[in-house]
Amino acid sequence: MTKVVIVGAGAAGTTAGLWAKKTDRKCDVVIINREPYPEYSRCGLPYTISKVIPEFLNLMEHDPAWYENFAKIDLRLETEVTDVDPKAKTVKTKNIKTGKEETINYDKLVIATGSHPAAPPIEGAQEKKGIYFLRTLQDAMDIEDAAQKAKTAVVIGAGLIGVEAAENLVEKGLKVAIVEFLPSLVPLMIDPDMAELVEEEMKKHGMEVYTNTAAKAVLGGEKVEKVLIENRETKETKELPADIVLIGAGVRPYTDMAQKAGVELGTTKYIKVNEKCETNIPDIYSAGDCTEYPDFVTGEAVPQGMGTIAVRMGKVCGINAVGGEAKMPPGVLLTRITKIFDIHLAAVGPTLNQFERAGIKPVVGKITGSSKPEYFPGGKLIRIKIFSNEEGKILGAQIVGYEDVHQKINVIAAAMQSGMSIYELEWLETCYAPASCPTWDVLTLVAEPVIKKIARKK
Amino acid sequence: MTKVVIVGAGAAGTTAGLWAKKTDRKCDVVIINREPYPEYSRCGLPYTISKVIPEFLNLMEHDPAWYENFAKIDLRLETEVTDVDPKAKTVKTKNIKTGKEETINYDKLVIATGSHPAAPPIEGAQEKKGIYFLRTLQDAMDIEDAAQKAKTAVVIGAGLIGVEAAENLVEKGLKVAIVEFLPSLVPLMIDPDMAELVEEEMKKHGMEVYTNTAAKAVLGGEKVEKVLIENRETKETKELPADIVLIGAGVRPYTDMAQKAGVELGTTKYIKVNEKCETNIPDIYSAGDCTEYPDFVTGEAVPQGMGTIAVRMGKVCGINAVGGEAKMPPGVLLTRITKIFDIHLAAVGPTLNQFERAGIKPVVGKITGSSKPEYFPGGKLIRIKIFSNEEGKILGAQIVGYEDVHQKINVIAAAMQSGMSIYELEWLETCYAPASCPTWDVLTLVAEPVIKKIARKK
Repeated sequence: MTKVVIVGAGAAGTTAGLWAKKTDRKCDVVIINREPYPEYSRCGLPYTISKVIPEFLNLMEHDPAWYENFAKIDLRLETEVTDVDPKAKTVKTKNIKTGKEETINYDKLVIATGSHPAAPPIEGAQEKKGIYFLRTLQDAMDIEDAAQKAKTAVVIGAGLIGVEAAENLVEKGLKVAIVEFLPSLVPLMIDPDMAELVEEEMKKHGMEVYTNTAAKAVLGGEKVEKVLIENRETKETKELPADIVLIGAGVRPYTDMAQKAGVELGTTKYIKVNEKCETNIPDIYSAGDCTEYPDFVTGEAVPQGMGTIAVRMGKVCGINAVGGEAKMPPGVLLTRITKIFDIHLAAVGPTLNQFERAGIKPVVGKITGSSKPEYFPGGKLIRIKIFSNEEGKILGAQIVGYEDVHQKINVIAAAMQSGMSIYELEWLETCYAPASCPTWDVLTLVAEPVIKKIARKK
Repeated sequence: MTKVVIVGAGAAGTTAGLWAKKTDRKCDVVIINREPYPEYSRCGLPYTISKVIPEFLNLMEHDPAWYENFAKIDLRLETEVTDVDPKAKTVKTKNIKTGKEETINYDKLVIATGSHPAAPPIEGAQEKKGIYFLRTLQDAMDIEDAAQKAKTAVVIGAGLIGVEAAENLVEKGLKVAIVEFLPSLVPLMIDPDMAELVEEEMKKHGMEVYTNTAAKAVLGGEKVEKVLIENRETKETKELPADIVLIGAGVRPYTDMAQKAGVELGTTKYIKVNEKCETNIPDIYSAGDCTEYPDFVTGEAVPQGMGTIAVRMGKVCGINAVGGEAKMPPGVLLTRITKIFDIHLAAVGPTLNQFERAGIKPVVGKITGSSKPEYFPGGKLIRIKIFSNEEGKILGAQIVGYEDVHQKINVIAAAMQSGMSIYELEWLETCYAPASCPTWDVLTLVAEPVIKKIARKK
């Protein structure tokens, strides 16, 4: 009877536990979690601010009793792991509330400790009330509470968390400004020529958008009042009123416990795992936001930090921990999507910047079209950009538009994962009906400029 | 200077002409068409009945002057080909209105003559007013006109044309009954367990649905009044009131001209072509609804009859006719989609019936889920069914649901066309965001039951 101990009840850890049980009903599963809740959707948190998701607890798929009574999982909440002994195969735990300590033995250990928000060194951003990060259910509760009395908010960082939080603060009725250090919005996901559509959409909804702009200081007394920003090019400064400051400036992994156990970190300083999600230490697996994994395109390790990858890694850990056999694909595509007001944006594979850093010069094709046939009313703008190498291997894509974006990026993800070439994509037999999509979907049309460019190079 | 003569200005023929010009600007292109219009969207016709597409001419992408002035294509409307001489490489044409005859020489001939509705031998269905087929713009105009004065309609045949026409007659305000000979709706596209959702949707919108039912006779005097139907199992009969009878009982190819030229028909009695869309006669190509093509899964020739395939074949003909090089994929997936009221239905590959006829016993997986994460409001029902062989090769899929159906079927189409296995599909890295789709899309979840069944067989 295998005993699987899992540290962290996020998407990765909980999925690992459920799949261990699904694979071998007789195994013992213990999940240890610092937070007072079992798994909830971290990605759903921004939507609790605006009450699009009306109750915080909606984000929780199962209550603690379900784990005990139905899943037969020993769930230890508000408990942290203080030590791990990979030779004795034990972890020491401490209940945060009661202080009670315990030593738990394991046959297999899964480290799914996740990550926490990075705190950039902005002057005055450390000691004031009204500054928030958005990572935990408690964070979301605090922001929702503060937003009820607030009129203005400044969001620092236009990554996924930043833009989603900004949207929901607008929906809540606040006047919102967003500040991004890099020259365009959501820079880890889409290139500037795609992000311009997102910027337009934000402005259409009354947001102020400051790109290529540094947040220099958070001003105020005990409580935040303003944010001082500076345009990185013109050096022009401005003070933005802020009852709330929300910082979305990336994350850092929790790796203390892993390092105590002698688990090796990779080049990115996240936990290194193989396709079976094994670390370098026997019987210790790792999954989710605390891990790095090879990028499908560049082959280089990346801190992937995505819910989809977390659950896939969790599944792999859970199956393998009880003697099953599961493997991650050799690389992660980083298929990513979000929606800001009415516009959807998605990507798979590296951005142009990321290509450049990896020393890859992709051939680029881009078109702007409609989601429906021209003659059918209600078609919506969609822009797609695709990357290929000179042999026609598809290296990535970005899509921004008002409908169908998420499933279209899945088509490219499937094409990439199965090695479809840009030449095959040109002839992909997509579906067509007047009310659905055109005979030549933008997915296939975008292959043409790439193929032309490749031909010209030869 | 190559002279390309194209017979038929439908999607296949017109696409051939435009791609010939795109490939070699100096070539001569003549398009000969029996109808008084250049290319229009045949698939859009049903939507003109309800005025969802407000003007008939919206369906026409370009007017005749565009072909002459911009595309530099010699468009001969209301003209039929009366003879073809493949040795002399000439066609004889006759203007339908003026009777003027002409002989036109060609270097390359493209036969894109399309198909016409089948007229099933229903008693009384030949000589009465009020009986319609829906194939041409003129048909749509006639139906729209008749529907203005009509209160009731009976649609015979629940294929794509039948159900789309039925929906639009309902939207127009008519009381509509649909009669299908086979046991379930849209039987060439989806299996009965998927079609039940479509039947519910139709009934919810006030339609009467009669499956497994024969239309025995059209009753009335000079004009239709009723349709006599008989349940094929119970033999129960009923008379349905009908100011309009619309027959959608399949199509037959126009092959007279091809046969005159010595062009070989295939096993289905449609025109046989190879991957380059060449017929057996040198310098004669064929494309679109008059052709058959090997099915991707069974390898057997099928009359494909789809707009997507027509334009792809047209592109191949056009490029090859002027000395370029293009090839169809070796088989057609028959990726198909439509929408009835609020429900969308899609398929790729054979139905269970079609598998059975081809002697294939697929492993079947089916799940019903939601388009969005459980915790996010507004997720909509989606049912997906997938077919694999015992080696895990994906053989087809059907999807019915209230959103995302068309692009999800495209994901499976991409997976099939690139040879992705059901094992790879299980791990496909789809995108995830609360407002878009769950961490495990139904696209990936549906692989699990198939994999379990395959494992059990081993």
